[in-house]
Amino acid sequence: MAKSVTISVDALGGDHAPQVVLEGCAAALSQDPSLSVILCGPAEVVEPFAASHERCTAQVTTEVITMGEHPAQAVRKKKNSSLVVGCRLVKEGQAQGFFSAGSTGACLAAATLVIGRIKGVKRPCLTTVVPSPVRPVVMCDVGANADCKPEYLVQFARMGAIYAEKVIGLSDPQVALLNIGEEEEKGSEFAQACHALLREKEPNFVGNAEGRDILEANFDVFVTDGFTGNVALKTIEGTAGVLLKTIKGILGSSLKTKIGALCIKDGLMELKGTVSADTYGGAPLLGVKGACIVGHGSSNPTAIKNGILTSARIVREDVVGMISQAVSAQADKAGE
Amino acid sequence: MAKSVTISVDALGGDHAPQVVLEGCAAALSQDPSLSVILCGPAEVVEPFAASHERCTAQVTTEVITMGEHPAQAVRKKKNSSLVVGCRLVKEGQAQGFFSAGSTGACLAAATLVIGRIKGVKRPCLTTVVPSPVRPVVMCDVGANADCKPEYLVQFARMGAIYAEKVIGLSDPQVALLNIGEEEEKGSEFAQACHALLREKEPNFVGNAEGRDILEANFDVFVTDGFTGNVALKTIEGTAGVLLKTIKGILGSSLKTKIGALCIKDGLMELKGTVSADTYGGAPLLGVKGACIVGHGSSNPTAIKNGILTSARIVREDVVGMISQAVSAQADKAGE
Repeated sequence: MAKSVTISVDALGGDHAPQVVLEGCAAALSQDPSLSVILCGPAEVVEPFAASHERCTAQVTTEVITMGEHPAQAVRKKKNSSLVVGCRLVKEGQAQGFFSAGSTGACLAAATLVIGRIKGVKRPCLTTVVPSPVRPVVMCDVGANADCKPEYLVQFARMGAIYAEKVIGLSDPQVALLNIGEEEEKGSEFAQACHALLREKEPNFVGNAEGRDILEANFDVFVTDGFTGNVALKTIEGTAGVLLKTIKGILGSSLKTKIGALCIKDGLMELKGTVSADTYGGAPLLGVKGACIVGHGSSNPTAIKNGILTSARIVREDVVGMISQAVSAQADKAGE
Repeated sequence: MAKSVTISVDALGGDHAPQVVLEGCAAALSQDPSLSVILCGPAEVVEPFAASHERCTAQVTTEVITMGEHPAQAVRKKKNSSLVVGCRLVKEGQAQGFFSAGSTGACLAAATLVIGRIKGVKRPCLTTVVPSPVRPVVMCDVGANADCKPEYLVQFARMGAIYAEKVIGLSDPQVALLNIGEEEEKGSEFAQACHALLREKEPNFVGNAEGRDILEANFDVFVTDGFTGNVALKTIEGTAGVLLKTIKGILGSSLKTKIGALCIKDGLMELKGTVSADTYGGAPLLGVKGACIVGHGSSNPTAIKNGILTSARIVREDVVGMISQAVSAQADKAGE
């Protein structure tokens, strides 16, 4: 039997909350018998759900953080929001992980301000599993830190490698720096400085990657600053979205193509499932003292379920403990 | 009858040179009766071709710049290479434009060092037409300048807007900054500074774009630094390539899907044509004193033909003159 894990869940996070969150919670609880959930939200949402589901506790909150609010200000002000309370439960040890499909900015602010960073971690990084049809690969940072220093990327690389190995199952992952040429001297001054420091400090570092290597899955972990990573991730989403939509248009354009569509429907649905972000249910914020996952605002119940289960997996694999050790080891090596 | 234009062409540029270059030249000369070509390369390549094609002159060169060489060093050293000579013909006024599908780095170095910048242009920018299935859009810089200052991006924006309007036919183009959020305060410190300066100086600036806006063609011109732009462009290429390859695999996986493939073949071929980089045949380097186009190393004859024709179009639309005027006007406005 798997180790018991408690995850706090923000019932109000996401474009279709609370309904999809409740459905996702129910599915996660049903799939993982060692999972408990503390559901944070308004009494009328969380109490009936907790009453009708085993291993679910209601945590009533009274405030709501909306998409338009300034993240850090909202987190500081609305201490009784589902987001802040969910994180506080992790801080206090009542839960080991937290899941929300709410505003990314507010989630990052709450996780960082309320739960706090692992000792020695300079900046937590938002990490994503890119759903390549070739195989899943990890990319970090994808948006937590628009401005970075090379030493942050060294930590992102180690955290990403631990996540890739323990949670995604990519053993001895190859870590590459997202850059604009293969050769060591390529790229911006920042990229060159990152390359040199990664070469020195990251044992799994293999060199530079380019944009096309991401979906081709030519490496296991793509490390980058949060600006470049966010642009790359959204570019992948946009490109895949437009191409699949265009193909859908082609398939529906005539009787002949409609017949063709029937013949290849299963394969295309499978592809659509593969390149969907739902499989892992969200992006973990690595480097905070808990298994925090930020779900996509458009999450469906499957994505919510998988986000909660991934959070539980991060706890069971002790990713926080491993990051803590790795960061201490890097600091010792650097004589810090 | 269109205005007479002479373009110098590097017979040795590209993975499949000289054969595809010769085929592309022949096709361009045949399609555009007002076009002349000066073909630069070894005597045994360029002389027979010029002898058998009207409006083509042979320019014999004796040196070769290879992919592995340091771009600027190679350009300085090999003054009798097809690349350097091709650019010198533009500098000397014998040609108005230059096309090569050789090493991007060497082409940029040759164009900048030999032809030179338009007065007032701080940095030339490599500009690409992103072949979105929705409609073509322009992105710049896609790799000439890994490190930029905000004032460079203001010039990139103006040059990209002129190109979008005059060469691609997007009237009154909407210019957006590639960033990681729509709101003005989003992004790195650099992106925020660019946003503020573009807001002040670029009349067609409409705000921030995100990665997914590129292939969705939500704006006409995406302006960015050469690092981010290069990552985004290669990410699009990689994503489109992997998805189309995966779909090809699905179509060939069983008898049923093979029947489906037959029914939708025409539509898919059309899509493949649309998202192909061949249509515009390469990336213009805007800001130098000539219509320089850098073709993809993997260019086929169609891409070479279109690259040469696009170069001629840049000349006929007087893009260099318009950039020169625009840059002077920006400088006057700034009291420089």
